[in-house]
Amino acid sequence: MTYCVAMHLAEGLVFVSDSRTNAGIDHIATFRKLFTFGVTGERLIVLQTAGNLATSQSVVNLLKQRLDGQQPNLHNVPTLYDATALVAETIREVIARDGVSLAGNTDLTCSFLVGGQIAGSLPDLYSIYPQGNFIQATEDTPFLQLGESKYGKPILDRNLEFDTDLEEALRCALVSFDSTIRSNLSVGMPLDLLVYHRDSLIIPAGYRVTEEDPYFAGIRRRWAAGLHDLLGELPSPPVEYNV
Amino acid sequence: MTYCVAMHLAEGLVFVSDSRTNAGIDHIATFRKLFTFGVTGERLIVLQTAGNLATSQSVVNLLKQRLDGQQPNLHNVPTLYDATALVAETIREVIARDGVSLAGNTDLTCSFLVGGQIAGSLPDLYSIYPQGNFIQATEDTPFLQLGESKYGKPILDRNLEFDTDLEEALRCALVSFDSTIRSNLSVGMPLDLLVYHRDSLIIPAGYRVTEEDPYFAGIRRRWAAGLHDLLGELPSPPVEYNV
Repeated sequence: MTYCVAMHLAEGLVFVSDSRTNAGIDHIATFRKLFTFGVTGERLIVLQTAGNLATSQSVVNLLKQRLDGQQPNLHNVPTLYDATALVAETIREVIARDGVSLAGNTDLTCSFLVGGQIAGSLPDLYSIYPQGNFIQATEDTPFLQLGESKYGKPILDRNLEFDTDLEEALRCALVSFDSTIRSNLSVGMPLDLLVYHRDSLIIPAGYRVTEEDPYFAGIRRRWAAGLHDLLGELPSPPVEYNV
Repeated sequence: MTYCVAMHLAEGLVFVSDSRTNAGIDHIATFRKLFTFGVTGERLIVLQTAGNLATSQSVVNLLKQRLDGQQPNLHNVPTLYDATALVAETIREVIARDGVSLAGNTDLTCSFLVGGQIAGSLPDLYSIYPQGNFIQATEDTPFLQLGESKYGKPILDRNLEFDTDLEEALRCALVSFDSTIRSNLSVGMPLDLLVYHRDSLIIPAGYRVTEEDPYFAGIRRRWAAGLHDLLGELPSPPVEYNV
């Protein structure tokens, strides 16, 4: 399984991905699911992946290999929309190639989030479905998720708006990951995160949050204790509840 | 869709169910999903249902109609285990009856939670799978869910233990429902709840929480505000997070 979140906010973009993959419950490994393309001062394109690992790795490798060619590639397409269409086309290409010789009913599909900014345009964020079509984040719906999205969705639904500042948005994302990791073993540390400030047109290094990271560990402790206190402080039910 | 929670705790049992059913997104209705059987001073058996409404209603009706007969029924089976096996058998009977003449691939299956206490035994709680087999709640895993379980599971995972008192457990269940109702339109008010104090062997009337219920509305407001404050109070990320 996988859990990825990307946010499209007034101040910029936030991306967080887990790194656990599994092929059966006894075949668990760590693979990065967040990838960065771009040219400083001109464009940043961030990809996050879920689904079949062979497919998503092939897609990312082909997108990288083709950066130098004349064909449309992630460093020369004019818009984020075109970048997303290119990623979707590459997914279909890989599935067509690998599906031919495949026995059985292995699911080769994968999903991508594609976000970033190209000079002259606003930041943008898309989600590519396994079928290859895609949707765009808007001010009304400023976040998109991939994979095991339900456990961590309530905290985003409740607290994330287009005008939320990047720091609070990142804290919200980390709490969302904490809830998901606690409830689903197939989502796991380390986390890869990347925060992009609108119009900076730099390629952020991002940050890998490991199990031992003191900040994330502190957030998890405080959040758990705070929720427990909050629950304890709720008023007692009235008599008609018959407790 | 449906969301039901039942808890098996040191002090007794807590049951909460939503009441929304849908056959397609444009065919939404309200049906009770929590049913009570029993004899004051001797036994209480509570059923909660999810899945095909025709099947689950037929099962509950047959279980009620058969209470007067000589055959094993919910008022004469000696244990909660046997009560659960009887419910499972009745599910299979209804599916076998209705499935014969059914064209297409309509899913007739349903799931039940069965909890209660019979004089001379401890309280007990089971979950019947759509396949008809069933599992039992234990001190390690004191709650069971039906239906749309993921949105509301983190708060239960974090805060519910076998020794949690009934009042705090009920508050925890209500918060779990609040999160689920916010994130999934197919889970909806009113809620039916029932709290059973261990060894009381009474048949609680239960309580229906409507949209206008001032206590639940207050809980929802306070919880939302409390979460927002808690998120705001979390420390800022260190410099290496590059926010």
